[in-house]
Amino acid sequence: MGITLKQAQTAVQAAHEKAIEMGVKMNIAVVDSGANLVAFIRMDDAWLGSLDISIKKAKTARFFDMPTGAIGGLSQPGGSLYNIEHSNGGLITFPGGIPIKNSEGQIFGAIGVSGSTVEDDHAVAEAGVRALEGQ
Amino acid sequence: MGITLKQAQTAVQAAHEKAIEMGVKMNIAVVDSGANLVAFIRMDDAWLGSLDISIKKAKTARFFDMPTGAIGGLSQPGGSLYNIEHSNGGLITFPGGIPIKNSEGQIFGAIGVSGSTVEDDHAVAEAGVRALEGQ
Amino acid sequence: MGITLKQAQTAVQAAHEKAIEMGVKMNIAVVDSGANLVAFIRMDDAWLGSLDISIKKAKTARFFDMPTGAIGGLSQPGGSLYNIEHSNGGLITFPGGIPIKNSEGQIFGAIGVSGSTVEDDHAVAEAGVRALEGQ
Amino acid sequence: MGITLKQAQTAVQAAHEKAIEMGVKMNIAVVDSGANLVAFIRMDDAWLGSLDISIKKAKTARFFDMPTGAIGGLSQPGGSLYNIEHSNGGLITFPGGIPIKNSEGQIFGAIGVSGSTVEDDHAVAEAGVRALEGQ
Repeated sequence: MGITLKQAQTAVQAAHEKAIEMGVKMNIAVVDSGANLVAFIRMDDAWLGSLDISIKKAKTARFFDMPTGAIGGLSQPGGSLYNIEHSNGGLITFPGGIPIKNSEGQIFGAIGVSGSTVEDDHAVAEAGVRALEGQ
Repeated sequence: MGITLKQAQTAVQAAHEKAIEMGVKMNIAVVDSGANLVAFIRMDDAWLGSLDISIKKAKTARFFDMPTGAIGGLSQPGGSLYNIEHSNGGLITFPGGIPIKNSEGQIFGAIGVSGSTVEDDHAVAEAGVRALEGQ
Repeated sequence: MGITLKQAQTAVQAAHEKAIEMGVKMNIAVVDSGANLVAFIRMDDAWLGSLDISIKKAKTARFFDMPTGAIGGLSQPGGSLYNIEHSNGGLITFPGGIPIKNSEGQIFGAIGVSGSTVEDDHAVAEAGVRALEGQ
Repeated sequence: MGITLKQAQTAVQAAHEKAIEMGVKMNIAVVDSGANLVAFIRMDDAWLGSLDISIKKAKTARFFDMPTGAIGGLSQPGGSLYNIEHSNGGLITFPGGIPIKNSEGQIFGAIGVSGSTVEDDHAVAEAGVRALEGQ
């Protein structure tokens, strides 16, 4: 099923450290290649509503093997994927979810982050992805 | 309830062959006149999130007896069916779902395809529909 | 994600042939190692309510890597897993779902069958599993 | 909302170590006093269906401030809480969920473990609870 718990925890910890460094309070979720949760943390006082969003971002990124924001660009009114968010029990299509690739370039999981601006969310998710580069 | 398993499998196989010819990885679903699933396949490495979308496209096409994209044209902000996607446990209203008619012109099922651009999805769905023309 | 579409279709077809031989009308579902649907058929005039049950049986068998009936033995009143069926969006814990192993003995999918007695359902599911033995 | 992320991670890690020591593969979840997830891990090759169960056990333990098994004793046929599992989006009432108290004896969270027998699940959950005693 792709990503191991150890790898998922490495990604979560790197994202957590980035969030502390940035002074933001995040929910951080990692799913495996089957889009099932492997590791999750909610920082103290992070938005409660971001719990579900972080998990949905991770799932969405794996569901379509692309950063969540890329889907959001297509799901706007008039866009080719308008209202795709109604599928799969609810998608989140703004930035903060990113697929994670193994050393062979295959996607074997995804990370989702929520708790601040979408720019912050994406930056924290990226820190998680980078921590696994080459693994 | 309309379409037989044999007919549904004929449509799925034709759509599958079209997808292979186009080099795309699809989820392909066929529902009967009651909008209940009759046959489904997910091609290797097709987007996981397209599983639910393909089934929802097939259901949506049968729910309203028109191609899904036609509904999407009316569900935009300001449109007459704005946010109709909230009904029926979630609709998908962009292209890729098409009703299937029997030899007497009656709709007796629908096909839904998801896994690439909406143009590709629609083209693969059409291949499935054509395979049943005159049956 | 384990089982390929080709393997899933082989299992579905073997189960379908077994069902025809037995004179029963079945819903037959195969999921991959992530418990996501790969192939499905509903035979003509098969119980409509068995559609969801067949998929839930396949998922349940993969969720716990054992035949569904084994779980049902533990989920009875007074049993150690009483009412486990309330998890995972609904489990089905009577016979008809069986994990599928690859040639190395690893579970890489599961089949679920519903449409007759649980004995018949299990027999048809077993025919699907046997068709993949050694693959 | 009670338990901090640091405390939740301490409980998860202690439970994880206990699971390794016992040779079992677990899903481990900790919720806060609001019954919302704070930390979660799924060990490699742990049952996929236990993901949801571990979270539901933690929630159930906090929903009623008692070990999940105690509720299961009352939810049997003829019992005073018969089929209480239908509430709250699904409860799990067999052992493996335990409330966590702070140093003043107030419940400020709960842990839920799933992946083996209910005895094993409960033992691993207890290891998580013990790691926070006096904190």
